[in-house]
Amino acid sequence: MKKTAVTPTRSEDYPEWYQQVIKVAELAEHSPVRGCMVIKPWGYALWENIQRILDRRFKETGHQNAYFPLFIPLSYLEKEAKHVEGFAKECAVVTHHRLVAGEEGKLVPDGELEEPLVVRPTSEMMIGEMFSKWIESHRDLPLLMNQWANVVRWEMRTRLFLRTTEFLWQEGHTAHATEEEARAEARQMLEIYVDFAENKLAIPVIQGEKTESERFPGAVATYTFEAMMQDGKALQAGTSHFLGQNFSKAQDITFQDREGNQAHAWTTSWGVTTRLIGGMIMVHGDDDGLVLPPRIASAQAVILPLVHKPEAKEKILAYCRALKEKLQKVHYAEDPLTVHLDERDLRSGEKVWSWIKKGVPIRVEIGLRELEQGELTIAKRNKGHKDFEKQTEETLLATIADQLDAIQDDLYAKAKAFRDSHIQEVDTEEAFYAFFKKEAGFVSAHWAGDHAVEEKLQKELSVTVRCIPLDGAKEAGTCPFTGKSSPQRVIFAKSY
Amino acid sequence: MKKTAVTPTRSEDYPEWYQQVIKVAELAEHSPVRGCMVIKPWGYALWENIQRILDRRFKETGHQNAYFPLFIPLSYLEKEAKHVEGFAKECAVVTHHRLVAGEEGKLVPDGELEEPLVVRPTSEMMIGEMFSKWIESHRDLPLLMNQWANVVRWEMRTRLFLRTTEFLWQEGHTAHATEEEARAEARQMLEIYVDFAENKLAIPVIQGEKTESERFPGAVATYTFEAMMQDGKALQAGTSHFLGQNFSKAQDITFQDREGNQAHAWTTSWGVTTRLIGGMIMVHGDDDGLVLPPRIASAQAVILPLVHKPEAKEKILAYCRALKEKLQKVHYAEDPLTVHLDERDLRSGEKVWSWIKKGVPIRVEIGLRELEQGELTIAKRNKGHKDFEKQTEETLLATIADQLDAIQDDLYAKAKAFRDSHIQEVDTEEAFYAFFKKEAGFVSAHWAGDHAVEEKLQKELSVTVRCIPLDGAKEAGTCPFTGKSSPQRVIFAKSY
Repeated sequence: MKKTAVTPTRSEDYPEWYQQVIKVAELAEHSPVRGCMVIKPWGYALWENIQRILDRRFKETGHQNAYFPLFIPLSYLEKEAKHVEGFAKECAVVTHHRLVAGEEGKLVPDGELEEPLVVRPTSEMMIGEMFSKWIESHRDLPLLMNQWANVVRWEMRTRLFLRTTEFLWQEGHTAHATEEEARAEARQMLEIYVDFAENKLAIPVIQGEKTESERFPGAVATYTFEAMMQDGKALQAGTSHFLGQNFSKAQDITFQDREGNQAHAWTTSWGVTTRLIGGMIMVHGDDDGLVLPPRIASAQAVILPLVHKPEAKEKILAYCRALKEKLQKVHYAEDPLTVHLDERDLRSGEKVWSWIKKGVPIRVEIGLRELEQGELTIAKRNKGHKDFEKQTEETLLATIADQLDAIQDDLYAKAKAFRDSHIQEVDTEEAFYAFFKKEAGFVSAHWAGDHAVEEKLQKELSVTVRCIPLDGAKEAGTCPFTGKSSPQRVIFAKSY
Repeated sequence: MKKTAVTPTRSEDYPEWYQQVIKVAELAEHSPVRGCMVIKPWGYALWENIQRILDRRFKETGHQNAYFPLFIPLSYLEKEAKHVEGFAKECAVVTHHRLVAGEEGKLVPDGELEEPLVVRPTSEMMIGEMFSKWIESHRDLPLLMNQWANVVRWEMRTRLFLRTTEFLWQEGHTAHATEEEARAEARQMLEIYVDFAENKLAIPVIQGEKTESERFPGAVATYTFEAMMQDGKALQAGTSHFLGQNFSKAQDITFQDREGNQAHAWTTSWGVTTRLIGGMIMVHGDDDGLVLPPRIASAQAVILPLVHKPEAKEKILAYCRALKEKLQKVHYAEDPLTVHLDERDLRSGEKVWSWIKKGVPIRVEIGLRELEQGELTIAKRNKGHKDFEKQTEETLLATIADQLDAIQDDLYAKAKAFRDSHIQEVDTEEAFYAFFKKEAGFVSAHWAGDHAVEEKLQKELSVTVRCIPLDGAKEAGTCPFTGKSSPQRVIFAKSY
């Protein structure tokens, strides 16, 4: 049996494999607070990279960052009926503003608030309130805002990165003078997300619209991009909502139009979260641990001084430090390379494996032999761990950006091949049930829009409509469940 | 009477002037949640710059970013007696995890938690808990962490940026094998802050140690850097704490040392907040609004197309857009220049004044005359608003970085001259009382360490010991309040 760095393997127990990868790669762990995670430096660096890259895209498309309060007064949350209904069951509620000594000297909450405050599960109701103050005229539109923040949705069953009570995200909120503009904004942000997922996270996604039952509470249309994990389940990786005038009417976001009439603005909101990290782990990870796409990696390369003779240590370290300096001056994608140098006194095997598990794209191993021969030993995380290349320093420095891009492309190609080979077109109810009882993957099938079908499939198979795809040919057909005519196929899957 | 853009002026009503500067510069505003502010884009950009610059310094000195939960279980907070005593009166407490319809259909909190959760006022108790899990051996030390986060301290009297219930900050937390190392860390981080305040915010500060009564709850030593505002009051701009073994004993942060013995780690914590923005406003602002030091400014320059003849509009705009492209390629300090182009259709006066109020260091005014003469009109925020220079585009591009540095230096020099002329050495109690009854500023006086003196001065004059300065000559003397001998002068002031 092949020995792997992670136990169990993906095929033995995929959910447990996922937890173990997070552990061995030191990405995150559960905190003492139920459902809240601690994001460790190697995991947080991924979030910093996500932030930096997306933040640039948001600013390039005219959005400005701001910061809105953590707390939302209960009465504000109630303004949009569907919205509050959607979040009421998972709200952390602040009811007191101090602690005093109670019986036996233990502290107890005191100073009850006149109105309870909800820890934001999302900020439509707070940001909309400010928009209603800030927007007076069509000259104030479009108003394009974003915030990077923490939000809380009380979850009973949590899983690191994928579903946690507190998570980090960005939430964009925009207001427009016309329906057309707001719809275009929601679609534009979806496209930015999709481009980011495919080109930075190396995750192929299907973009589409959610059915009515899966819409964001209060939205007119919710756009999503769905990725396939290695167990064939779907992950909703992020969403962009066209909110119509639902929120602007609930919150009185009005403006004077060019003709001098008062009108309600059209709004959108859109967000991605630390969940993206969970998706990346599940799409690219293997039985030896994490595999990081170079364009988002916490570090693109690690230099491993392998010291077998103590007297050679300083010579090897000196060379490695100089190489690190040189590599850090190389630009890759939009930023300088991030390079680690592991100077720990560890056995070579232990040192090498710690970085395999952490998923660094390129390892540069340097011992006395490399110095004497003038060639570095290069190992790549997307190859087998006994697969080495010899490169001169000159070659490495000149071509590392291209080599990283080749790794990036390879990871995307592998993920896409896996995804494509696990999507099946199905045209009968029997074949649909047969697929989900024994196969892992997505089904592309017709559906005439009946919510009863969604309920039945969810109940009997735990399968939902992931999205009504936006791209691709829209050939009409017949819903296998109702016999009604359907305008296009939709994507069905089990999901996270 | 001279007309000013801000009413009232500083001399008429300094606190109200401060609020008005924040308003006219569009930095922030009060939110509907008591004590919580909305940071608007122009203000948030300052925070982004503070983050970017400090984050680099933290990483250069070996610190790693991570993220820890927003909530702290009540029982954790109680582990360090002085710590919880210090924060109990200002804690937002989460007691319920959902909302249900109550009487009259109004939502009420439901799902009471077994143990209440405190919204973090600071994270010693959570991060220490993780440290105690992560640290086993001297090889795990030092452990150098930082997080950028929001924290909540329930405040009854709030003031935008200076004191708000929720604020943004960074909190560094480190653990070390020796007392010496931990003390050096606390001092190193203080020095990074002081360098940042002086060289980026252009705020001269006095660094020193807090007296026992002003220490962080649970600390052995609290280092501070104190700035003088234009009303002569002190602002504690940030702090760095040597925590000794108080927290490691309360939280069981132990390690096996080189000799194989179990020992308690020595810890530190240090933080700066959005309060820095308040300090910057109060130090540099004038009666026309905000004045931004170039190295931290939301934008270093703004291009103002001034269109008096509609037919010239496109020609002027085309020139301005090209100039913006060129300016954005110039590097200033550690980053590319941030340049705005104001294309709004506004009267010239209104357009110009909006940017004076927002404090942009350099305004580049461009109308038909400038295009025809081949010279740009340059106005600088640190000069009078009728003070213009003519510069060719070539000169501007070649020297803008130097011009900005000259503005930076000028702002620092002005602030330092003001500060230095408002510090007075005082040697008698009578002179001390006389100063604080009619002068604005700091007093440098001897003090023998008696807490009773601190209490009396706070009660009678609202004056506190701001710090025991770390630098400067330490000439001994006599405490004017007790007649006891004192090793050095300390700084007294009223404060924010």
